[in-house]
This record gives sequence, C-alpha cells and structure tokens, in this order.
Amino acid sequence: MVIQSVSNPRIKRVRALKQKKNRVAEGVFLADGDLLVEEALKSEHDVQEVLISEEKLSAFSHLVALAENQSVPVTVVASHVMEALSDTVSPQGIVAVVALPKAEPPAPKGGLICLLESVADPGNVGTIIRTADAVGADAVVLCGDCADAYAPKTVRASMGSIFHLPVVHLKDAAETAAFYKAAGYTMVGTHLHGVDAFDDDLHWASKTLLVTGSEARGMSDTLSDMCDVLLRLPMPGKSESLNAAVATGIFLYTHLRLRKD
Amino acid sequence: MVIQSVSNPRIKRVRALKQKKNRVAEGVFLADGDLLVEEALKSEHDVQEVLISEEKLSAFSHLVALAENQSVPVTVVASHVMEALSDTVSPQGIVAVVALPKAEPPAPKGGLICLLESVADPGNVGTIIRTADAVGADAVVLCGDCADAYAPKTVRASMGSIFHLPVVHLKDAAETAAFYKAAGYTMVGTHLHGVDAFDDDLHWASKTLLVTGSEARGMSDTLSDMCDVLLRLPMPGKSESLNAAVATGIFLYTHLRLRKD
Repeated sequence: MVIQSVSNPRIKRVRALKQKKNRVAEGVFLADGDLLVEEALKSEHDVQEVLISEEKLSAFSHLVALAENQSVPVTVVASHVMEALSDTVSPQGIVAVVALPKAEPPAPKGGLICLLESVADPGNVGTIIRTADAVGADAVVLCGDCADAYAPKTVRASMGSIFHLPVVHLKDAAETAAFYKAAGYTMVGTHLHGVDAFDDDLHWASKTLLVTGSEARGMSDTLSDMCDVLLRLPMPGKSESLNAAVATGIFLYTHLRLRKD
Repeated sequence: MVIQSVSNPRIKRVRALKQKKNRVAEGVFLADGDLLVEEALKSEHDVQEVLISEEKLSAFSHLVALAENQSVPVTVVASHVMEALSDTVSPQGIVAVVALPKAEPPAPKGGLICLLESVADPGNVGTIIRTADAVGADAVVLCGDCADAYAPKTVRASMGSIFHLPVVHLKDAAETAAFYKAAGYTMVGTHLHGVDAFDDDLHWASKTLLVTGSEARGMSDTLSDMCDVLLRLPMPGKSESLNAAVATGIFLYTHLRLRKD
C-alpha cells in the first residue's frame, strides 16, 4: 500500500516533527535523506520507522533491506507526500523516524567532551558535532538556549555525526559543568583575556570539558568563573572575533594535537 | 525628503542588487546593517550611497555624520521601503551601496593568500573570509563556481571582514594559482592522501597560497597536481570529512603558528 494523502494521520504526525515541541512531545526526530537514514540504521539509535518515496524503492533497496533486517517498519509514500515530509528543497526520497536520546549527562569516559552554552545557530551546532566526531570526542552536551541538535537543519549540518557520538540537551550549564569537574575533567573555555591557546607549555588533559559560548555574548560569567583554563586565539588581523564553529574546531584540533594521555 | 515608495526608480535599483547579475552589471553591492555600513565607511572601499530608515536617523546619527564627512549622499526612506531593501528578517534600518573591487589578482605582498575553488556555500565563503582576516591573511581569491562573496548572506557571514582585506572573484583557478606560484608562493592543498598537517617537520612558508576545494568534491585534479604540499587533518573519530570553513580555519591557524618569516 502506498500512502497517497498528506492528511493521512501517520503522515501528519511525521510532518509535525519539523517543530521542536512535537519532537519533544513524541520523543523522536527525523533523519532526512539516504546518507542520514543509513547512518541512523547503522547506529545504536532506535529507528522506529522508515518512509520511502515510491519511485526510490529500487535506488534505495539496500536501505529497505537494512531496515527490514532490523524489523524496522518501512512505509511507501507517493512522491508528493515525501515532498511534504522533507525539510529540504530537493527531497532525496527517504526519511527515518528516530528516538531522541535520554536527557542525561553522557558517562564520563575519560576523553574530550564539548559543552555548548546557548550556541544559537543550527549550522554552528551541527558543524561542532561534526568536528567533535572527527577528533573522536566522547560527547556533545548542549545547555542553555542552544539551537536544537535534533532540528532538521542541525542534523543535516552534522553530516551524520549526530549518530556517531552521544549528543544531549541538558538545561543547566553550571550543573552539567560541575558534574564533569567532579569526575576529574579540566574545564577549558575561551575568553578575550585568556592565555594564548598555542602556548606550548599548556597542558591539555585528556579529560577536558571544552566550553563554547553563545555567538553573540560568549560564555556566561557563571561558566567562565568555573573554568580551570581560559584561552584565547591570537588575532593579528582586523577581525575581532571568530565564528563559533571555527573557533571550537581549532580548539578541538589543538586538544587532539597536544593532549597528554 | 523621505522616499515613501518601493517603486521609486532609485529604490528599485538598490533592491535589484540582491541578484548577482545586477550586482555585476552595476558594479556595486549592498552592505546591510549598522555594523557593515560602519565597516564600509571606514574601509578603502568606494561607498556610493547610504540609505537610512526615517526612524533610525537619531540612533545612527554617527553613521550619517561619517557618510557626510566623506561626501557620501545619504537618502532617508520610510521603514516599509527599508524592509524591501534589506535581505534580513529584522532590518536594522541602514544600508550602503558599495563599489565592487576590480577583478584582478591581489598583489603578492608576501603573506598568506586563500584560494577558494568552487566553495558553494555562502556561509562557508563568508566564514573563511572572516578567519582569513583574523589571522592577518593578505587576500581571499575565489575561483570556479564559488558562492558570490558579495551576496548579502556572504557579506553578513564575513561579519565585516570583507571590508578588511582584498576579496576578489577570478574565473580561472589554475591561471590564478600559476600567477602566485610564479611569484614564489608555496601552494598548499588538502588531500585525503596528503601528509599529516600537524607534522612538526613541515615547513610553512610565509608566502603560502592555501587552497580550499569544493564542499562536495574537494580540489580539482588540476589544482591538486599543481600543489607543492598536500596535507590532511587526522580524523581518529567516525566522521569522514570536515566542514570546509572549519578545515580552512584549522589550516589558517596552523600557518599562523608555524610559519617561518
């Protein structure tokens, strides 16, 4: 059976996942496109359903097989229904409904953890998740008023990395930071009055909690006061600041280069 | 006199600058918002006109004075006219019409130059311009099918940096690279089979031409074959690639850290 109507109740439920309140209420989010659906199916995430456009059944037969092997139900929809489900301009013809992870601090495993405090741009949040994944970070924790890590735009910007490491929203940044500090993590943040991040004498602990503050205001004073180390990136040019995802990427790679295990 | 109509011919001309073909035909682009208008007026760029929303005359009186000191004509418009001019959701109430720079290779001044080959995302292009400015690079040159550096989205993402260093579009990437190589620049690109970018034995010349390839396909074979050094960033995690602006930012800061003058 091919679902032909966008007002089908099941389709309406999936379409509603574009809004955060519905994602939270239902406890699920959408992976949109073959790359993300494949990553979701190969991850430890609980994939509840796959929806595929009728004319993509043969092109994505490997994904249908992957879903069916895991007893994930696959629903075929008409292409205009897929267009209504997808958030992109050119839908790729397949989406998956995936359970949101539990909102609890990822276990301290001894490597690097990123803490984002009110990083507002979904592109920045997704890109930071992607870079954190690249360097093998243990988790990304989002506190305060961050863009939703599970919004379609953020999931896309993560390029599938959201399925590779724990990414959770926790409301209270100070409480979260205190939890990891108590577990022996060194808390590192960026500050205009910090020490030069490229100082060779800096000791980068393997157990580092790296804080990225808001694009507009930087870290809050509360978090800044909790940091063990405040760093700044030299800016010999005329720019007065860096993009949050770029700055975080440079710190993540500095950690990778200099960490003492 | 306050312009009240969006169909006023001067307003129509400015509105048309949202399209690249009109920017190229007129040889001008738009700086939108007080931050960018201020940067434009303080730069060496030729600002042809400032348009300001009637109710922002007192809030931005310093910018009006700055424009008038330079004999830049200031036109007052009704707020609904400003809304039509601006590309943003919440217009800040002031825009400037600025001359595009000449399409010729920036003079080789002996520092770092970024060459972007078909970097398609305006956010990535703007962010790379911002980071290049931060490290004090000499210029950013865009070749192939790059996003337009002078599109509203790119100008915004550059956070004013587009006014701090030469940023030009040149069609032919290989010709541009050959020009700088002939001027003694070391050409450096990213490649999956390159050497580790954090190898301490790497010699980073002050005169470096750093190439960033397309987000989807990387550098073309033509450019890759011209490179003196091919580098890769270690990725011990599960991600198979990095965002182009993040990777370029890490290379720009590696150059800043290790360059031999």
